[in-house]
Amino acid sequence: MKIPKPVYYGDYLQLPKILEAQVTESAKYGDEAHDETLFIIIHQTYELWFKQILHELDSVRAIMQKPYIPSTDLSVINSRVERVTAIQQILIDQIQVMETMTSLDFMEFRDFLVPASGFQSLQFRLVEATLGIKAHHRMEVEKQFFKSRLKPEDHKKLEAVEAKVSIFELVEEWLSRMPFSQFQDWDFWGEYSVAVDRMLTHDEEIIRSNPSLDEKLKGLELKNLEATRDTFRVLLDARLFDQWKAEGKVRLSQKAMLSAVFIYLYRDYPALQMPFRILNSLVEVDEKFTTWRYRHAIMVQRILGTKIGTGGSSGHEYLKSTTDRNRAFLDFFNLATFLIPKSATPKIPPEVVEQLDIVYDSLRA
Amino acid sequence: MKIPKPVYYGDYLQLPKILEAQVTESAKYGDEAHDETLFIIIHQTYELWFKQILHELDSVRAIMQKPYIPSTDLSVINSRVERVTAIQQILIDQIQVMETMTSLDFMEFRDFLVPASGFQSLQFRLVEATLGIKAHHRMEVEKQFFKSRLKPEDHKKLEAVEAKVSIFELVEEWLSRMPFSQFQDWDFWGEYSVAVDRMLTHDEEIIRSNPSLDEKLKGLELKNLEATRDTFRVLLDARLFDQWKAEGKVRLSQKAMLSAVFIYLYRDYPALQMPFRILNSLVEVDEKFTTWRYRHAIMVQRILGTKIGTGGSSGHEYLKSTTDRNRAFLDFFNLATFLIPKSATPKIPPEVVEQLDIVYDSLRA
Amino acid sequence: MKIPKPVYYGDYLQLPKILEAQVTESAKYGDEAHDETLFIIIHQTYELWFKQILHELDSVRAIMQKPYIPSTDLSVINSRVERVTAIQQILIDQIQVMETMTSLDFMEFRDFLVPASGFQSLQFRLVEATLGIKAHHRMEVEKQFFKSRLKPEDHKKLEAVEAKVSIFELVEEWLSRMPFSQFQDWDFWGEYSVAVDRMLTHDEEIIRSNPSLDEKLKGLELKNLEATRDTFRVLLDARLFDQWKAEGKVRLSQKAMLSAVFIYLYRDYPALQMPFRILNSLVEVDEKFTTWRYRHAIMVQRILGTKIGTGGSSGHEYLKSTTDRNRAFLDFFNLATFLIPKSATPKIPPEVVEQLDIVYDSLRA
Amino acid sequence: MKIPKPVYYGDYLQLPKILEAQVTESAKYGDEAHDETLFIIIHQTYELWFKQILHELDSVRAIMQKPYIPSTDLSVINSRVERVTAIQQILIDQIQVMETMTSLDFMEFRDFLVPASGFQSLQFRLVEATLGIKAHHRMEVEKQFFKSRLKPEDHKKLEAVEAKVSIFELVEEWLSRMPFSQFQDWDFWGEYSVAVDRMLTHDEEIIRSNPSLDEKLKGLELKNLEATRDTFRVLLDARLFDQWKAEGKVRLSQKAMLSAVFIYLYRDYPALQMPFRILNSLVEVDEKFTTWRYRHAIMVQRILGTKIGTGGSSGHEYLKSTTDRNRAFLDFFNLATFLIPKSATPKIPPEVVEQLDIVYDSLRA
Repeated sequence: MKIPKPVYYGDYLQLPKILEAQVTESAKYGDEAHDETLFIIIHQTYELWFKQILHELDSVRAIMQKPYIPSTDLSVINSRVERVTAIQQILIDQIQVMETMTSLDFMEFRDFLVPASGFQSLQFRLVEATLGIKAHHRMEVEKQFFKSRLKPEDHKKLEAVEAKVSIFELVEEWLSRMPFSQFQDWDFWGEYSVAVDRMLTHDEEIIRSNPSLDEKLKGLELKNLEATRDTFRVLLDARLFDQWKAEGKVRLSQKAMLSAVFIYLYRDYPALQMPFRILNSLVEVDEKFTTWRYRHAIMVQRILGTKIGTGGSSGHEYLKSTTDRNRAFLDFFNLATFLIPKSATPKIPPEVVEQLDIVYDSLRA
Repeated sequence: MKIPKPVYYGDYLQLPKILEAQVTESAKYGDEAHDETLFIIIHQTYELWFKQILHELDSVRAIMQKPYIPSTDLSVINSRVERVTAIQQILIDQIQVMETMTSLDFMEFRDFLVPASGFQSLQFRLVEATLGIKAHHRMEVEKQFFKSRLKPEDHKKLEAVEAKVSIFELVEEWLSRMPFSQFQDWDFWGEYSVAVDRMLTHDEEIIRSNPSLDEKLKGLELKNLEATRDTFRVLLDARLFDQWKAEGKVRLSQKAMLSAVFIYLYRDYPALQMPFRILNSLVEVDEKFTTWRYRHAIMVQRILGTKIGTGGSSGHEYLKSTTDRNRAFLDFFNLATFLIPKSATPKIPPEVVEQLDIVYDSLRA
Repeated sequence: MKIPKPVYYGDYLQLPKILEAQVTESAKYGDEAHDETLFIIIHQTYELWFKQILHELDSVRAIMQKPYIPSTDLSVINSRVERVTAIQQILIDQIQVMETMTSLDFMEFRDFLVPASGFQSLQFRLVEATLGIKAHHRMEVEKQFFKSRLKPEDHKKLEAVEAKVSIFELVEEWLSRMPFSQFQDWDFWGEYSVAVDRMLTHDEEIIRSNPSLDEKLKGLELKNLEATRDTFRVLLDARLFDQWKAEGKVRLSQKAMLSAVFIYLYRDYPALQMPFRILNSLVEVDEKFTTWRYRHAIMVQRILGTKIGTGGSSGHEYLKSTTDRNRAFLDFFNLATFLIPKSATPKIPPEVVEQLDIVYDSLRA
Repeated sequence: MKIPKPVYYGDYLQLPKILEAQVTESAKYGDEAHDETLFIIIHQTYELWFKQILHELDSVRAIMQKPYIPSTDLSVINSRVERVTAIQQILIDQIQVMETMTSLDFMEFRDFLVPASGFQSLQFRLVEATLGIKAHHRMEVEKQFFKSRLKPEDHKKLEAVEAKVSIFELVEEWLSRMPFSQFQDWDFWGEYSVAVDRMLTHDEEIIRSNPSLDEKLKGLELKNLEATRDTFRVLLDARLFDQWKAEGKVRLSQKAMLSAVFIYLYRDYPALQMPFRILNSLVEVDEKFTTWRYRHAIMVQRILGTKIGTGGSSGHEYLKSTTDRNRAFLDFFNLATFLIPKSATPKIPPEVVEQLDIVYDSLRA
C-alpha cells in the first residue's frame, strides 16, 4: 500500500465550483432579493441529496439483479435503504428552513423564476422511477406536466430509467422465489386460514355485542367486516388475486404477497429478520416521501395561499393530490390487514424451524 | 417570607397514586400481554398533557376576556400558546413510541379493550371546544359518536365548555376592536387594492406568456386567477364577505379579517409583533393537531390494516377524514392569499407609524 | 373465547386518579404560580415513562437469565431495548417543553419545593441499577446524596435492585458463552492481528509523510498511535486484559470483549445481525441518557444560572459532572477502536460460514 | 414591470456544475468505495449551508453597523438570526445520516483523504469570526492548526474577516447605547439590589434550614451562595466589573450587561420584546454550534475509536475540548444568574412605561 497523494479539503469537495453556483435572478432586474439565495441553496442541497439517494438505490438495484442474493448482501441492501430514509428525514426537516421565508419576502422574487419549478427536478423523477413508479402509474396531469415542462433531453433520461427494471419488480421476484407460498409436508396456509376465521368470527361477536353501537352503525361495521373477510379470501385464492391485480387493487403477485405475509408473521427468526427489515424500510421510503409531499404542500399553501407559484400555476392543489400517490410499496404498507395475534400464528414444525433458525451447539451447552 | 415545609419528591408528585394506576385487562383473562402496559402508560401521558394544555388555554381565555388586554399580557398569551405547541410536538413524537408495538403484539390484547377508544377522551374534546370547535362545526358522524360513546356526565361537561366563549371568539373580538379596518386620514385599503390589482395583472401576464403551458392549462390557470381575484373582491366588500361567512367559507368577521391582514403585512412594527406572533402560534396549534391526527391515522392503519380497532370499528377511515377538519383558526392559515410583496405594501404615513413604532430619542442621538 | 366485559376509556386509564394528582405547593402559601402545574405534570410524565422503561428492562433481564436464549427471543430483547431508546428520545424532547418556562416564572415557586429534587427519583436509580450501574460505580458525592436524600424505604428498594444481576452482567455472560474467542481449525485472532498490524503500520507512514504536521505534532501523533497499538496488544493478551479490568479501564471480560469484536466485524451474517443490534441498542441507551443529562444540565443553567435549585444546592455543576458517567455499556461504545476496514477482515472459512449463514437451497436454484 | 425571461429549474440551480462535483479519491487507487460519495455529498451540503449562514450573518452585520437601528430592522435581524438557528438544526440532524456509515466502510477510503479535514473548512471559521471569535479567543493548538493546515490564501481570508467588526461587538455597542443603565428619576438598580438581597437572604435561610444537608454540604452551599452574592456585587460595581473583563471572565462591558439584564427582566414590554428575542437567538446560535461539535465528536469516536482520522490525527480529543468553547455570546447564556422572580422585579414608573409600551387609545375604549 503506497501513501496516497495529499488531499486538500476545499479541492476534494470542489468548493469553488459549488460555492459560486448561486446566481440570483432578482439581481438581474434590480435589487437582489435577500431571500433568493436561500431559495437557491436549499434547492441545491435537495438535488445533492437526490443524487445520493440515486447512488444508493442504483446500488441496491445492482445487488438485487443477481439471481441469488447472499444473506450478507441482504444486510447491505437494508443498510442502504435505511440510509435513504435517513436522508429523507433531512429533506423533511429542511422544510422548516424554507418556512423561515415569509410570503412577503418570497413574492419579492417569485416572478423572476417563472416557469422554473420543482416539477422539473429530473433527479426526483428518476428516484421515483427507480423505486417502481412508471409512467402508467402516474396521473394524466402529471404525465402532461412532464412532457410540457421537462427539457426533451431530461424527458429522454427519465424514459430510459423507466425502461429499466425497478426495485419494486426486483423485490417482487425475490419474494416469489422464496419457498413460503407452499411447504412440502406442512399445510401452513390451511392452518393460517383457520386462525383467520377464528379471529374474524370473534371480531363479529364483538361487533354484535358492542353496547355502544346502534343498529345502523352495527350494520356498517358488519359490512366492513365482510369486506375484510373477502380480502382474506382473495389473498388465498390465486384466481381472485390475479383479478385484483388486473384491476390495479394490488401490484404484487400472489406468490410474492404470500411470502411477504409469512415474513411479517415470523420475522423473529434469523432467516427472516433481514427480509422483514428490507420490506419495512421500503415502506418507510414511501412514507417519508408521502410526508415530504404533504409538508411541502402545506408550506406552499402557507406562503402563497391560492396565488400562483413559480411554475406559473397554483400548485398546492396538485401537490396535495399527489401526497398519497406514487407509492411503489403500498402493498407492504397494507399488509397489517393479513396479520393475526402472535399467539394465534400456526406453530412451525421442526423441519421448517431448522431452515429458519440458527443454533450453535456450543451455545446450548 | 417564612421557610416553607420541606417537600419530598415522591410525595409532591403523588407517585404512589400515579404509578399504581396501570392495571392490564389481559391479565384478567389469562396471561398478561407484555405490551398492554405501554398502551396504558402512553395514553396516561397523553391525558396528563391534555390537562396541561387545558391549563394553558383556560388561562389564555381568562386573560382575553378582559375588555382591554395590556401589551405585557399579550406576551403572556403568546408564551402560553407557544407552550401548547411545544407540548403538541411531544404528542406527535410519542407516536413513534407507539409504533414500536407490532400488529402481532397489539392483537394480543385488543379484544379486551372493546369498546374503549380514544374518541372517549373527554379532555381532548374540551381542548377542541376551548379553541373554538363547537358542536355545529363537527361532522354528523362525530356528534353521534359522542352521544353514543361518551358517558352522560362526560357529555354534559363537554356541552358546558361548548357553551362558554371560545378562544376563537375572543380573538375575533380582539381583532375587531383594533383600529385597522379604517384609518382617519389614510386610505390604506384603497392603496392596498391598487397594489393587489397590479400584482394580479402581472400574474395574468405571466400565465399568458408562459411557454410551457398549453392552451388548456392556460385556461385553467386563468380561471384560477379569476378565483383569486374574486377572493380579494370579497375581502374588501362587507356585503360579499358576510355572504361568505353565512355560507361557512370563512369564520371570521370582515373587520377581524382586515385587522389580521394588516397585522400580517406590517408585523415588523413593535406594536404588531406580538399580535402577529399570537395569530401565528394559534395557526400552529391547528397544524400540530392536524399532523397529530394524520400520524395517528397512519399508525392505526399500519397496525390494524382494515381490521376493527378497540372502539369496535374500523376507525382509520374516520380518522383520516377528520385529519384536516376541526381547525378553529383556518382563516389565519389561509391568510397568505391576501399578502403581497413587501416592497409593494403601501407606505405607512408618519402619524400612523408613530402609533406602531417605539423610538427612544436617546437612541437616535 | 368469550366476549370480555365492556371497558370505558377513562376507567381503564384510571383518569380520575391520574388527573387529580396535581396539587401545587405555591397555592398553599398564597397565589398559585401558573407554571407550577407544568412542573408537576412534566415530572409525572417522566415517572410514567421510567415505569415503562423498568417494565421493558425487567422483561429483558428475565429473558436473558435463561441458560440458553433462543434466537427468536433475541429479537424480542432487541425490540424492547429499542423501545427504551424510543422512550428516551421523548424524555429528551420533553426538555423543550420545560424550557418554555422562564427563570422569572420558575423562581415564583422554586422556594416552596425545597428540598425535593430529581435526585430523589427512585425509579431513575432503579433503571440505572438494572442496566448495570452499581453503588461502587458511583461517585462518592452521589452515594452520599442518596443516603441523605432518599427516604430509607426508597434507599432499601434501590439496594435490593443493586443486589440483583444486572443486564450488563447478563450480556457479558451471554457474550462469554459464544464460541468466537477461539475457533477449532481457524486461527482467526492470528489473522486479525496481522490485519491490524498492517493497518497501524500504514497509519504510521501516513503520519510520518503528512506534510501539514510539524515535528512536534508528528511526535504527538506517533505517541498516540503507539497508545492505539498498546490497546490492541491488551485486547489479545489475557493477562494484560485482566490487569486493565482490575484497574477499571474496562468492565467486560476478555472473552466477552473478543466475542463483541467478532460480532461487530461480521455483523452482516444472519447469526450475528441480532446480537450486533442488541449491543448497538444498549450503547444507544447509554448515549440517550448521556444526552438527556447534558440537555438537562444546560436547561438548569439557563433557568437558574449559578443560583441554587429546588434541592437546595447549585446542582448544575454536579449535573454536568455526571453527564458522561454512569454508562454501563461504555466498552461497546469504544469498540470502534478494534475495527478494521471491511476489505481487510479475515475471510471466514466455509465450515464457520455454515454456522453463521442461512441458505435456502430452493433460493439458489 | 416587464415579463422576465423564462427560467429552467436545472439551469437556475446550475445543476450540471453541482452534480458533477463528486469525484471519489478511492476510485483513483482501485475500486471505488461505495460510501465515499456520501462523505463528499454530506460535506458539500454542509458547505452550502455555511454559505447561507454567512449570507445571513453578513446582512445582520450590515444592518447593525447603522448608527441607529430602526425597530422594524430589529425584526429583520431577529428573523435572520433565527433562520441561522433553523439551518444549524439541519447541520445537527445531518449527523444522523453520517452515522449510517460504519467504521468498516469508512476505513475503506479514510487513507485516501489524508490530510484533508473539516478543520480546513474556511467558511466555518468565517462564521465563527463573524459572530465574534477572534484569533485571540482560540486555544493555541487551534491557531497552530490553522497556520499549518489552511492554505495561505484561505488563512489570509480568515484574517481579513477577523479584522472586521464582529456581530458580538456590534451587539455590545447597541446595548451600550441603550438608556437602561441609569434612569433620570428612578433608582432602578438600587431597587433591584434590594430585591436581590432579599432573594439571597432567603436562599441562605433555605440552605441553613435544609434537613437533608449535613454540615459539610451546608458549608459548601453557603460558600457557593457567597460566590453568587459576589457575582451580583461585581455586576453593579463598574470598577470590579472592568477587572472581571480584564481577567476574561466576561466579554461584555458593564453598560451593555446592565442593559441586557434590564431587557431580560422586562422582556414582555413591546419595546423590549425584539431586543430580548435577538439576544436569545444569538445564545441559541452558540448553543446549536456547541451541540453540533459535541454530536460530531461523538460520531467520530463511534466510527474511529482512538484511531487517527483523515486529518492524520486522532481528532476526537481535540474535538471534545472545543465543544464548549468558541461561544461568542456566553455572557447572555449566563444571564440567568442575574434574574429574580417576576413578582419581585421593581415596578416600572409610569413615565418609563410610556417609553416601553404601546397603547392605542382606541383599544382602551
